[in-house]
Amino acid sequence: MQEGGEGRLIDARALVDAIRAFADARDWAQFHSPKNLAMALTGEVGELVEIFQWLTEEESRRATQDPARAEQVRHELADVLIYLVRLSDVLGVDLDAAVREKLAVNARKYPVETSRGNNRKYTGAAS
Amino acid sequence: MQEGGEGRLIDARALVDAIRAFADARDWAQFHSPKNLAMALTGEVGELVEIFQWLTEEESRRATQDPARAEQVRHELADVLIYLVRLSDVLGVDLDAAVREKLAVNARKYPVETSRGNNRKYTGAAS
Amino acid sequence: MQEGGEGRLIDARALVDAIRAFADARDWAQFHSPKNLAMALTGEVGELVEIFQWLTEEESRRATQDPARAEQVRHELADVLIYLVRLSDVLGVDLDAAVREKLAVNARKYPVETSRGNNRKYTGAAS
Amino acid sequence: MQEGGEGRLIDARALVDAIRAFADARDWAQFHSPKNLAMALTGEVGELVEIFQWLTEEESRRATQDPARAEQVRHELADVLIYLVRLSDVLGVDLDAAVREKLAVNARKYPVETSRGNNRKYTGAAS
Repeated sequence: MQEGGEGRLIDARALVDAIRAFADARDWAQFHSPKNLAMALTGEVGELVEIFQWLTEEESRRATQDPARAEQVRHELADVLIYLVRLSDVLGVDLDAAVREKLAVNARKYPVETSRGNNRKYTGAAS
Repeated sequence: MQEGGEGRLIDARALVDAIRAFADARDWAQFHSPKNLAMALTGEVGELVEIFQWLTEEESRRATQDPARAEQVRHELADVLIYLVRLSDVLGVDLDAAVREKLAVNARKYPVETSRGNNRKYTGAAS
Repeated sequence: MQEGGEGRLIDARALVDAIRAFADARDWAQFHSPKNLAMALTGEVGELVEIFQWLTEEESRRATQDPARAEQVRHELADVLIYLVRLSDVLGVDLDAAVREKLAVNARKYPVETSRGNNRKYTGAAS
Repeated sequence: MQEGGEGRLIDARALVDAIRAFADARDWAQFHSPKNLAMALTGEVGELVEIFQWLTEEESRRATQDPARAEQVRHELADVLIYLVRLSDVLGVDLDAAVREKLAVNARKYPVETSRGNNRKYTGAAS
């Protein structure tokens, strides 16, 4: 993982500003408590999940081949992203720093040798 | 919204690569169908919501003042981000393009004049 | 649907009372606003989803054959049920009446003739 | 908690039968793997959460005073219940036995003396 160097893994600063401007123009900051935004995030993830719920895994891999469904997928992914970025902003969390920290935790938690091709680490079932 | 200019609103390309390398090293791509990743995203959002569920809105605004809870918040936000970015990657969706498209839709859907300080637009209640 | 007769489709009145007594004994009613309980429900559904997220559909059908996983499934299903029943109680909603009303709506929405063996009704894709 | 005696805390057997008949008439059992149903449950909980996300806790307590919103609440609670009951059915889980088992676990986990008026037990914050 190329975590080193000066660069960021993710740079969402312009998006943070755009969403903040969008909310401020509508005087919506009053509604944007972390509690409310976490709920809004839930709702959007629910809409994303609904796209895939009756599809087989194989069908889900081809979901964006249909143009209408591809647009739906893009919109729902964007909605989740918007609320995630907004929630991080109001909480004062830098997503780039947070994700670097968590990837390092994950690398320790799932060593390559013992995690290879193994979904048991995920499920908690005994190996 | 300062969407103009040549720049991106969000640049997650290095994160896409980092997550892809992480998964490939563990031979996990086989588990990463959009269907499965949408479920994993759900689980992580559930863990994020659990942090705020018994807090008042005011308490949620101060959630990161406690160092232990701040770390928990960072980790859960990062987990949601990781699965969102991975899901977009396997679906072939460019998050920057998707969020630009959706913000334009939202700007038309919520005109400043009629949306100002108004959460009724959100809730669907009659005005 | 054999909805006829005098009986209920679901009778959760003793469970409503049990959960109410449990909460009252701990003075927890103050935390049990519909908003908070909806969030708690989200968290529990997230834990339930985590059990199935890396399983194939076929594996998910056999999930309760493993005793440890069967217990986990029972606990998560119960947690979802507890918050759903509690949420209905604080909102003053009779679950039996609500589910009768909704099943009648669904019967009109998904006529047998056109819905047979068809998951397109679910997904919204054009037929 | 009146768990004793011959009675059940919850009796959903007629609802199990009604949902099974509804699905069988449409040949939908093929889509109703536990994995898919867990996803459908997520989607419905997302719709329920959306009702409350921009409301204050106080507003959420009065949510069913508005007839249109009351109907929306009933429908979403019913949808969550339908998928929860269906998921339990295909997994072969008796909800009454599961909830009795879990309430006993909860009673040990949250003793009255130390849990009284205390949401810290919930949040995991140090006391």
